[in-house]
Amino acid sequence: MTKGPLSGIRVVDLTRILAGPFSTQLLGDLGAEVIKVETPGQGDPIRGQGGMRDGFSYYFAGFNRNKQSITLNLRTDQGMAALRRLIATADVLVENYRPTVLEDMGLGFEALKKIKSDIIVCSISGYGKTGPYRDRPSFDFIAQAMSGFMSSTGFPDREPLRAGLPISDLVAGLYGALAISSALVRRERTGKPEQIDVALVDSILSFASYFGAAYFATGEQMGRCGNDHPVVAPYGLFHASDGAVAIAPSNDQIYKRLIDALDLNEAMDSPDFATNEMRMKNRDRVNALINERISQRPRAEWVERLNAAGVPCGLVMTYPEAFEDPQIRAREMVLKVEHPGHGPVEMIGFPMKLTEAQCELRLPAPELGADTSDVLASLGYSADEISELRNMKVV
Amino acid sequence: MTKGPLSGIRVVDLTRILAGPFSTQLLGDLGAEVIKVETPGQGDPIRGQGGMRDGFSYYFAGFNRNKQSITLNLRTDQGMAALRRLIATADVLVENYRPTVLEDMGLGFEALKKIKSDIIVCSISGYGKTGPYRDRPSFDFIAQAMSGFMSSTGFPDREPLRAGLPISDLVAGLYGALAISSALVRRERTGKPEQIDVALVDSILSFASYFGAAYFATGEQMGRCGNDHPVVAPYGLFHASDGAVAIAPSNDQIYKRLIDALDLNEAMDSPDFATNEMRMKNRDRVNALINERISQRPRAEWVERLNAAGVPCGLVMTYPEAFEDPQIRAREMVLKVEHPGHGPVEMIGFPMKLTEAQCELRLPAPELGADTSDVLASLGYSADEISELRNMKVV
Repeated sequence: MTKGPLSGIRVVDLTRILAGPFSTQLLGDLGAEVIKVETPGQGDPIRGQGGMRDGFSYYFAGFNRNKQSITLNLRTDQGMAALRRLIATADVLVENYRPTVLEDMGLGFEALKKIKSDIIVCSISGYGKTGPYRDRPSFDFIAQAMSGFMSSTGFPDREPLRAGLPISDLVAGLYGALAISSALVRRERTGKPEQIDVALVDSILSFASYFGAAYFATGEQMGRCGNDHPVVAPYGLFHASDGAVAIAPSNDQIYKRLIDALDLNEAMDSPDFATNEMRMKNRDRVNALINERISQRPRAEWVERLNAAGVPCGLVMTYPEAFEDPQIRAREMVLKVEHPGHGPVEMIGFPMKLTEAQCELRLPAPELGADTSDVLASLGYSADEISELRNMKVV
Repeated sequence: MTKGPLSGIRVVDLTRILAGPFSTQLLGDLGAEVIKVETPGQGDPIRGQGGMRDGFSYYFAGFNRNKQSITLNLRTDQGMAALRRLIATADVLVENYRPTVLEDMGLGFEALKKIKSDIIVCSISGYGKTGPYRDRPSFDFIAQAMSGFMSSTGFPDREPLRAGLPISDLVAGLYGALAISSALVRRERTGKPEQIDVALVDSILSFASYFGAAYFATGEQMGRCGNDHPVVAPYGLFHASDGAVAIAPSNDQIYKRLIDALDLNEAMDSPDFATNEMRMKNRDRVNALINERISQRPRAEWVERLNAAGVPCGLVMTYPEAFEDPQIRAREMVLKVEHPGHGPVEMIGFPMKLTEAQCELRLPAPELGADTSDVLASLGYSADEISELRNMKVV
């Protein structure tokens, strides 16, 4: 048994690339047994993508820990028969094919329930299983565009901008894992199955927050404002002698603490700066005064001094800096995992800190098909049968 | 009983602003009963923030549906006594105070378990309950800076950039809800309680994806590249006659489909454009050729034509456009909710589409303290006792 809260739950994972594998990895981190089904000889395309070292993808490693890998050619009857036997032992099935593919494979919800009456099946796709765009191809970048997200991000004088990270994939993966977990709660109580449909576009649209609320309240689209706050000044990036700091004095009380800590009471003692409204009007002058003071000392000093004064302030870190940061290290947010044949591999840790039934790293990301024989044997296949499947390239 | 998968689960919600309220709203959308505890006379500060209309916050409405509100002054013995009686009836407690506050209130995990032996308590904070920065104030913007996220986003010739939306708050809210749901699965099976600690910085750090993998594999920080893809060209925003389109030909096969659909085979027939590597080197010329063709027709036409050709392509939508989009409407991603006294209020719909036990909108966001009397009565307080608590301003 694993330690995590989903210990004893078996997940069959038909996903590839990012949103689906992230979702199933979250379930695996939480203690579920995840069996990743891949195409013989090929496998998940991200096995050959992202940060590579000596032919090994650290990108794949970071999204496929706590999983086993079996190969099955699902274009063969024998491969589909093995998949059905596997599903019969599973609690959850996750897939991110195009919307009609699972049904075309004979694994629509009604068929799945005949194989396993209380199955929870989760589909993750670009636009979802319904609606006029359901058959369109999609990627994270397209979802960032279609969801309005990009219109919120960037400078007012430049074009709308995507996040540098595939946030639509990742948020959809989180929603998938949450929907699955909540369906498992219900299944424990009622024994009932569930069918879940998560779309990248819906997922990142749900983050509209104040842009959405502003539109619904006023009919207006808020403007992009770079690192500035739309309705608070000062707020944003400021430039210390050796780099940038982020400062977020979100209300008048914290603004006063900031001006005290910067010893700027005299310089800011003008009707032009007396209220947030006036400071918004004179933002350039406010920012220039603050930057002039901030530029005199190194950034680490400001982070110490301003936080001590109760002003939220942080370094604008690169990833190399973040991964070495004492807080990130204290939170064990970087894990070093021994990968047989590839040495120790670093990856992101667990953001969910449970104390009674913790997330844990049990398995490094598997080699393609590493667990095929073991899993097939556990399903009742004999050694001869497994050999024959290998000879026929079904596995 | 509610329809959703968390029907029958009661959540006591001590959170305010964004990450916590988003987390508890997710649980409420999934069918949990959420009782939001607010300070008498004040309540959650976002009741007065974000998109306002006639003194009513659409921002608050969009993050507090499916909740009841009770007021309790937790600085009084009577208020704390009522909270304890409420917790004794609850399955889950969620809070986003500074790390030591809950313990200082006498509600550490050990104390909570004495009130309710199988309680699941989830704390959401800027840096988490451990580590050297645990006592620092924090906000979403600071977490975007400290987590490395900003270093991934923006143009190479401009400073690192935050997402325009409070993504650290929202991702932390999702992790909180996921950790809670998975702990509920375990509680159903074992009867055991759980204590969960989620930090904004950890949460958004976990999205490092290819930036993280590239650093772990090579020791190098990837550069910011605006809307371009770091290793694929062409890819990004292109300018139709009436606005921008996002085009994502992520591999050679899709690139060929794009060039066919644009009728650019002749123009692109040069060794300078023969491979992705060459196109990366000559990205400016590639983009100019494509833009010249794209600029000749309106954006809706390109979206139709390119998707029909199997090339992922989407409009770069504003929120007003996204909310009117036929796909978003078909997915019911905009809900119109009758708020007594405020008319119909629009808000974002449910990105988790479950078919057997669906998310549903049962309650509009509550007026401050609207459910105080009902909830106290359900805990066994008499009408006289409730009146006295009101007179003493405990509620």
